[in-house]
Amino acid sequence: MSRRGLLTGGAAAVGGALVGVATSDALQQQKQQPQQQPYGRQTEPFHGNRQAGIDTPPQAAASFLAFTLHRDTDRDAIGRMLRLLTDDAARLTAGRPALGDTDADLARTPARLTVTVGFGPGLYRAAGLRSPVAALPAFPIDRLQPRWTGGDLLLQVCADDPTAVAHAQRMLVKDARPFAAVRWVQRGFRRGRGVEADGATHRNLLGQLDGTANVRTPPGAIWAGDATTLVVRRIRLEIETWDKLSRTDKELAVGRKLDTGAPLTGGKEHDEPDFSAVDSVGLPVMPDFAHVTRAHVSDERIRILRRPYSYDGEPDAGGVPDSGLIFASYQADVGAQYLPIQRRLAEQDLLNQWTTPIGSAVFAIPPGCAEGGWIGEQVLT
Amino acid sequence: MSRRGLLTGGAAAVGGALVGVATSDALQQQKQQPQQQPYGRQTEPFHGNRQAGIDTPPQAAASFLAFTLHRDTDRDAIGRMLRLLTDDAARLTAGRPALGDTDADLARTPARLTVTVGFGPGLYRAAGLRSPVAALPAFPIDRLQPRWTGGDLLLQVCADDPTAVAHAQRMLVKDARPFAAVRWVQRGFRRGRGVEADGATHRNLLGQLDGTANVRTPPGAIWAGDATTLVVRRIRLEIETWDKLSRTDKELAVGRKLDTGAPLTGGKEHDEPDFSAVDSVGLPVMPDFAHVTRAHVSDERIRILRRPYSYDGEPDAGGVPDSGLIFASYQADVGAQYLPIQRRLAEQDLLNQWTTPIGSAVFAIPPGCAEGGWIGEQVLT
Repeated sequence: MSRRGLLTGGAAAVGGALVGVATSDALQQQKQQPQQQPYGRQTEPFHGNRQAGIDTPPQAAASFLAFTLHRDTDRDAIGRMLRLLTDDAARLTAGRPALGDTDADLARTPARLTVTVGFGPGLYRAAGLRSPVAALPAFPIDRLQPRWTGGDLLLQVCADDPTAVAHAQRMLVKDARPFAAVRWVQRGFRRGRGVEADGATHRNLLGQLDGTANVRTPPGAIWAGDATTLVVRRIRLEIETWDKLSRTDKELAVGRKLDTGAPLTGGKEHDEPDFSAVDSVGLPVMPDFAHVTRAHVSDERIRILRRPYSYDGEPDAGGVPDSGLIFASYQADVGAQYLPIQRRLAEQDLLNQWTTPIGSAVFAIPPGCAEGGWIGEQVLT
Repeated sequence: MSRRGLLTGGAAAVGGALVGVATSDALQQQKQQPQQQPYGRQTEPFHGNRQAGIDTPPQAAASFLAFTLHRDTDRDAIGRMLRLLTDDAARLTAGRPALGDTDADLARTPARLTVTVGFGPGLYRAAGLRSPVAALPAFPIDRLQPRWTGGDLLLQVCADDPTAVAHAQRMLVKDARPFAAVRWVQRGFRRGRGVEADGATHRNLLGQLDGTANVRTPPGAIWAGDATTLVVRRIRLEIETWDKLSRTDKELAVGRKLDTGAPLTGGKEHDEPDFSAVDSVGLPVMPDFAHVTRAHVSDERIRILRRPYSYDGEPDAGGVPDSGLIFASYQADVGAQYLPIQRRLAEQDLLNQWTTPIGSAVFAIPPGCAEGGWIGEQVLT
């Protein structure tokens, strides 16, 4: 499912370079230049049946941009906008400047840039079409703020380099704004590329490994044909009170060891928790209301693909952090996959005491396109 | 001058690994694990005569935090605060949790974390001491906003990983707040580590290489004994109008080729511009008002060490970016080194049309400390 095998440009990187050092000349050369092969020119393929940025190994930096269509942006205008954005995305992800981009030098190092386009209910409405997605129902735990909620159009811009994200965002916003206003922008980060081994699970700002039980197979859990859906939730972390917990209490709330991510019933990060295990006094080792217990989905076919990022805004004058999680999950069917998990968590999850959803949006992710095509053509034409 | 040679932990990284591949076994092993050695555990030494984070090769992510001392924070209290912050910094930069840090897992990958402590004029005043630094004089180009200006205490937190920066910031702010309020926080980024070759000059969001003419030698330009000074300026980039320029006009404004950073008189990035060169009609090839012409300092002994970061906030609803530069320069003497350059630039610099200083602060950077000591002990005791 990984696109890593398809990396181009400097992609051979260390692996490829090592194959070449069998001769002493090459070895000598490498010793003189011990630094890592720069990966800035690596690219992720833009064109294809499915959009990139979904099962792409998560990049280090992300920007989620939601737009509100202008009143006069009708079906034709939406098509024109999507042709423009597709052209920008195809160029920028390949390391080429967008049309009218006078900063070619910023475009030259895309660092695995992907641009993923999503449609909110309002875009279908403006196009006179029935929307396949709807806003989530309200949950009692929600404290949603309009400034982080909803959206007619989503652009998810990811790269291993925040400068590449910033430049792509600037080009895309410039081309979108005749058709739509910026509604919200959420910038996020994961560990810098290379900080940990490739493929390591994201560790969020609560110190918790996040994404362990991600769907791996089958692809049917993610893809409905070549389309999918994206739920974006902005989740504020109540770090002030979280920090008052002991490590043991934190681990009981999560249901996993904080260091390794292993379930409290032992083993390694990706081992299944044993929900029947009891301790010496007969209490379940995995607490009933632990996050992992409530979120657990045994059936691989209805798991979701989480692709979360951390955010960290400015603390207030009193030093209270503005930290949290940009929860982003991909699933073939929001109603059959995301909602049952979310209902269980909203009803009872020890972590709810330290997490507050303050933003929410749902988008349909249409199929990808071939060269010369545009994202959304199957939906709008 | 670089501290890179002193990297510990996983520092051998690719270079070290390559030396080991002379045997076919090791080569085989490397082929099976082609990924780069994770660098998360690399550290920069905290203790020393001089503080780290100055001539340290710039890390990918930064947070500049300025504080206003509470009214009752007197000389004794400042000392207690600095002992606490020094203890936090010494632990966190070594990859160990701060005291009272229940998220040890976030501390374990410092990724070359440095914490640099600076004192503003207000700290000296509160301690009953004469300040060696003062706010900069007003320049006609300034549009300073109080929310980005001044500060009694500065913490510059840098690492190759934004999660390490976020965690260190949270620990430091928690320990500072009994003594001081957060005044402003500026988060910045450079290219992700490994995007370009190590040591590549920073490319800012105008697409311009920034820092080419940095001081290299002698160290006397940076250090006054073991102390130095830091000027932090928040400079908004007027990208909307900048983007309307042709590449030629951009290069004339800067005085360098945008792609290579070479002066307009030719050669390579680090070659000296030839200010006497004229074109076929007798006009200087380096325009008199180009940024490089105005900023140029021939005498290496009075150059400054720039260590800039980009920032990129949320665009407004109309799509206008909030992008800019966190200009940060270190110099032994603000008056003898920074001010003459800044006066020339403020008077005439073509780039002024596309850059607006919106924040400004000056800090004295006291010497470093030995193990068991604390930053500021020479100043306050």
